[in-house]
Amino acid sequence: MIKPRKAVMVMDGYNPPTSGREGYLRLDFNENTVGCSPKVIETLSKIKQGSLSVYPDYNKLRKKLSEFLKVKFDQVMPTNATDEAIKTVIETYIERSKDEIVIPVPTFAMFRFYAQLNEAIIKEVLYNDDLSFPTEKLLMKINSKTKIVVLVNPNSPTGTSIKKEDIVQIIKKARDNNALVLIDEAYYPFFNESSVELINEFDNLIVSQTFSKAFGMANLRIGYLVSNEENIKNMLKVISPYSVNGVAVTCAFAALGDYGYVKSYVREVNKNKVRLYDELGKLEIKYYKSEANFLLIDIGDKCYDYCEKLKQKGILVRNRTKDQLLEGCVRITIGTDEQTEKLIKALREIK
Amino acid sequence: MIKPRKAVMVMDGYNPPTSGREGYLRLDFNENTVGCSPKVIETLSKIKQGSLSVYPDYNKLRKKLSEFLKVKFDQVMPTNATDEAIKTVIETYIERSKDEIVIPVPTFAMFRFYAQLNEAIIKEVLYNDDLSFPTEKLLMKINSKTKIVVLVNPNSPTGTSIKKEDIVQIIKKARDNNALVLIDEAYYPFFNESSVELINEFDNLIVSQTFSKAFGMANLRIGYLVSNEENIKNMLKVISPYSVNGVAVTCAFAALGDYGYVKSYVREVNKNKVRLYDELGKLEIKYYKSEANFLLIDIGDKCYDYCEKLKQKGILVRNRTKDQLLEGCVRITIGTDEQTEKLIKALREIK
Repeated sequence: MIKPRKAVMVMDGYNPPTSGREGYLRLDFNENTVGCSPKVIETLSKIKQGSLSVYPDYNKLRKKLSEFLKVKFDQVMPTNATDEAIKTVIETYIERSKDEIVIPVPTFAMFRFYAQLNEAIIKEVLYNDDLSFPTEKLLMKINSKTKIVVLVNPNSPTGTSIKKEDIVQIIKKARDNNALVLIDEAYYPFFNESSVELINEFDNLIVSQTFSKAFGMANLRIGYLVSNEENIKNMLKVISPYSVNGVAVTCAFAALGDYGYVKSYVREVNKNKVRLYDELGKLEIKYYKSEANFLLIDIGDKCYDYCEKLKQKGILVRNRTKDQLLEGCVRITIGTDEQTEKLIKALREIK
Repeated sequence: MIKPRKAVMVMDGYNPPTSGREGYLRLDFNENTVGCSPKVIETLSKIKQGSLSVYPDYNKLRKKLSEFLKVKFDQVMPTNATDEAIKTVIETYIERSKDEIVIPVPTFAMFRFYAQLNEAIIKEVLYNDDLSFPTEKLLMKINSKTKIVVLVNPNSPTGTSIKKEDIVQIIKKARDNNALVLIDEAYYPFFNESSVELINEFDNLIVSQTFSKAFGMANLRIGYLVSNEENIKNMLKVISPYSVNGVAVTCAFAALGDYGYVKSYVREVNKNKVRLYDELGKLEIKYYKSEANFLLIDIGDKCYDYCEKLKQKGILVRNRTKDQLLEGCVRITIGTDEQTEKLIKALREIK
């Protein structure tokens, strides 16, 4: 049997439980719980036989994205969702067994995954106990060996955000150390603050956004990176030339044309978040305030049992008790009025 | 400005000309020239709003593929087309700046691309002058430093195939040297011989196939790797967990259910290939016999002019004159009866 390379043998696998979710109210993956804009479905139904057989062309979408983001055409590139965005940044810049990547934890598992795959030296910074962002601790980790600093804003699974002035301070310190800052904004626009506009001010900033969350298109695998022209050019050299599928490109184009749909969904979710705070307070369940479309509740020892009981009531949530700082915590995606009603009913019954 | 890592700075870019192809008879990318099965389009038109917002699930397709290929469920994994198949094999096994990869040339550009990206030591083996496979020369390149041997069968852009006994001989020598053999069968079933059945005999064999060519689904980005369970397990650890989009998964499932459509298209193309041989003979244009859905013609010095003239007549072809051994050669995808009629008419007029 042929052995894989060493880094592969020792790295952590990633096996998210995405099978067997049908039929449940799926509050476990921070997806859009109702689905994408009907315009996207309409677009799908109009796709013609011949258009699937040709290789994808990204120019039209890049132009549309540049208008949406108010950046230049050469400052944006589509990616196979956030996963490939992260992968491409690391693959473009990390010199193996030499460059450091700073990752605040707990966070999205794929940062560590791609850092390990590319043999980056990983410097983790633990969030504060109240799950607020550890700005001071992170600044101390940035030095001349640092190549990439990861910020997830707002972060999953904590749901917490980073202050604009802290972001700028981090970008500046990174710049002084010849390091990039990658800001993952997967939960934009649930959290309405973006750092995209800073790309013209700082040439070491890369921002990632996605159609997987608020846009409700996780299954299509499409996102994008925004940065200055030079960084985009370097990353375009590394990314697989056709990694984003053409149907996703067509659908993303349609989705951007119906952004009102997304904004309306975001309003509904954010309203229900406040409603959940209120309800959790009444139930005396500890929770963390969140800037995204999910929140963490602290259930303590009985978290496994709690998730199982919710499942029996037809609701999937994600147990995060194994994450650093999150012992006893369960992550719950927030959905529509009706779904929130169902969730609250279940929470009351389990209590 | 933050510099990318060294290997990225020195590597070749890959910028295929896939824009501005609309409205032409596209005989330049070896795509299916009529499109995928109507069942795929029907499937697309039935996709519901909620199904796009959830992360993809590959189990149903893996099961269907395993039946199609007559292998076990654990012996096949979907990939984001052949590009990611190649990328994953290299990324799983190549130890940077140490392991050698043997690549017969000229061939599909992405082998060199991903080898460079992963800092493999590239050992090229030149095809024979008549574009037949250089078995002896290749065997001599395999040694204890070799980690991966690439075979493309049939090869693009040469169109030539490798004899089964030569394949077995190469796999055996690779096995004796602890090296893998990756066989890219992108043009299956235009060429109806596959090495998939050999995976149970040789644990160092990995086969790649795709829905991009005969199936007419290049825009959807889906293919698969077939190997023994252990290799698949290692590669599943490395591949991005959601790199294949769910719409492609659903469409591939539908396409496998209408394989008769693909076989009928393949018969038409292979019939037109023989017709083209005949016509090219009459026109006294030198050509190479091909086992795929394209062929090479040798036009000599005027190849640039020749491609331009075909474009003026509404037909796109691919000039391969810059490839090793292929000076003056133009690659033409073969299509339907009607398209071949149009092509022949144009070839006669240009003559």
